[in-house]
Order: sequence, then C-alpha cells, then structure tokens
Amino acid sequence: MKLYDWEIAPNPRRVRIFLREKGIDLEIEEVSGPGLALSSEYLANNPHGLVPALELDDGTVIGEAMAICRYFETEQPDPLLMGTDAKDKGLVEMWERKADLEGLHAASEVFRNVAPDFKDRGLPGQRGDAIPQLPQLVERGKARVARFYIKIDKQLGENTFLAGERFTVADITAFCTLDFCKWVELDIPAECTNVQRWYDLVAKRQSITG
Amino acid sequence: MKLYDWEIAPNPRRVRIFLREKGIDLEIEEVSGPGLALSSEYLANNPHGLVPALELDDGTVIGEAMAICRYFETEQPDPLLMGTDAKDKGLVEMWERKADLEGLHAASEVFRNVAPDFKDRGLPGQRGDAIPQLPQLVERGKARVARFYIKIDKQLGENTFLAGERFTVADITAFCTLDFCKWVELDIPAECTNVQRWYDLVAKRQSITG
Repeated sequence: MKLYDWEIAPNPRRVRIFLREKGIDLEIEEVSGPGLALSSEYLANNPHGLVPALELDDGTVIGEAMAICRYFETEQPDPLLMGTDAKDKGLVEMWERKADLEGLHAASEVFRNVAPDFKDRGLPGQRGDAIPQLPQLVERGKARVARFYIKIDKQLGENTFLAGERFTVADITAFCTLDFCKWVELDIPAECTNVQRWYDLVAKRQSITG
Repeated sequence: MKLYDWEIAPNPRRVRIFLREKGIDLEIEEVSGPGLALSSEYLANNPHGLVPALELDDGTVIGEAMAICRYFETEQPDPLLMGTDAKDKGLVEMWERKADLEGLHAASEVFRNVAPDFKDRGLPGQRGDAIPQLPQLVERGKARVARFYIKIDKQLGENTFLAGERFTVADITAFCTLDFCKWVELDIPAECTNVQRWYDLVAKRQSITG
C-alpha cells in the first residue's frame, strides 16, 4: 500500500495529519515535479491528475483526500475522526464539506488565478486544453474566504472544535485551509478571536507539530 | 424530524432519492420563494442559506446533502448506499466527490452565471453583498462538464455503476447532475454510449420514477 503525496500542497496534508492522528505509518511517494506541478511520470499513470492518491496492494487507486480518510476510518476506527453516532457523523461531514467547499476551494480560487506558476492551469486535475486564469476569481475568492472566517468564528465561539467537543477531520480540513490562506495573505482577521483560539489549540497537536 | 427541501433544485433531489432507496418516509417542508430563490422566512432562520437541511427532533440542523445521507446511512444501513467495506467505502466516496465537484459544480457554474434570475447571486449560499455573475465561467463550466462526461464514460465502460457493481450514492449524485445538465443544454454527448447505457438503467429505478 502506498500514498502518493505532494508535500507542500494542502490536500495531501489533510491525509497525512489524519494518518498521524491514528498512528498509521505508510509508504509515501513524493510525486512533485518542476514548476509547482506534479511529475510527468505520475500524471501519465494517474488519470485524475491529482494528489493525494492511495494505491492498495491489489492495485486499486483511491483518490480524493476524504475518500482516503474514509478508507482508514473504516479499517482502523480508533480514534474516530469522522464522527461517532449518526448525528455526530452528519455534523462532522457537514463541517468538513463546508471547510472544503467554502474555505479551501475559495482560497484555491485566489491562489490558482494569481500565481504565475499556474498560468493556463486555472483548475486542478484538468487535462487537455489550457484553462486560463481568471483575474475576476481572485477578488471573488477573497470575499468568499472573508465570509468563511465569519462563519467558523461564530461556530467556534460556541464549540471547542468545528463539529463540537471532539477533534475531527473537519478541524483537519479547516486547519490546512487556514495555513493555505497564508499563501495568499488571507490570515485570520484580528476580530475572529474564536478562530485564533481554535487555531492555536490545534497547532499544538502532535499530528501537526510532529 | 423534518427535511427542508426545494423541489426543483438538484441538491435536495439527491437526498430525496437516497431516502426513497432506503424506504424512509419523512416530513418534508418546501421552502422555495419567488424568483428562483429560497423563501425569506427560511433564509432568516437558516444561517447557511442552502437546501437541503435536516432538522432533528432536538433542534440540531444538519446541512449538506451528503451529510444528511450519512446520517441516514448510519441510522438505517439497509440497503448500504455509501459502501460496504473500507475499499468500497473509499471508492464510493471518491466517485461521489468527483460527481459533485467535477460534474454538479461545473454545471452549476454554467447555470448560475447565465440565468437572469441569478443576477448578483453568482454563488449559492452566500449572504451579504451581491456576487456578480462572471460570463467567463460559463465557457469554463461547459469545458469542465465535457471532461466530466469523458471521465465517467470510461469508468462506466468498465463498471455497471459508477463505483462498481452496486448502485450507490455516487450514482445518485451523477444522475442528478446529468438531469441538471439538461437545464443548460449540456445533454449526454452522442459518443458517450456508456453514460447513456447507465443513465437509462438508473432512470428505471423506482426511487427515480416514483
């Protein structure tokens, strides 16, 4: 079994933190290439053109960070990171998806449309014709990130972690999102004191510092 | 327990089909308002401004279609629609996320940026300042949908359903995506014969026809 990884990218980082929380040790292959891109060898063999990807011993490849986490959550439930009972699983999935769609996707929208290395690669994992950067998405992405901060600040004012009183995969996605936001100078706004309190708490975990 | 629904929208439809597959009957409240929008009463009470939303008897609200499905998958596993063992759960989640992110989001990008009713509402579930439509996203969304069709045609040439030999939630998301694609005249391309075979098969299910 092997995890295809790109160390600097936020999506594979979600999986690495998840694995460290569970104490799972795995063979990891770094597949970055020149120019902030994946290696041409990896792209030739992976039809989705994305990382992370988990290759099982039977050759099956599972892509998408949360799908890989789901695999390990099922194989090794302890500690549960994707929810306990039906209600908790629902809330964890809701907040994980919101962190992904409203946070990480918004920050990506800013980054991919402004970074010179991503010229003609305006979308991840898309093969074939060039996809031009759209400068209009930079401003829109910044507005989305600002709204995401306000939303999670309210939630974190009422809960220790994003989906309640337990650390879960929703916190992992949100934490990786906030670190990625620094790349595009969208740090935690000073008024979002609940987000800052939570960030400092999560940053101390061994899965992050280790 | 109550499901907040907007009958014409693709996201709540995913949940309704999921519930019918499991034979779960639920109180449903339609919350559409004038001008292809959610009702102002619902928006005032739902901070995320999106449907579907599931309100539990204790007042907890779970948003995001897949989070609601996860709740019911846990409460009533039979029939399993989100995978069986670790590998299957991983593959189902991968294909569901791809159908959502590469299919439904792409079709939404086309629709929301071209439909007159969505002027100044370029993104779903965003409150506050107007978000202008971006005409550039119409062409980009069409290109993404075209690539999505090619990707799932290959997968459906090798499998009965999107994530293998069982009908799963990945098929539900993809089916709702394809019906939504018709709204923006992005029907199944003639050369995607595997997609057409699968579409015709799924369309006959009682959860769709009923």
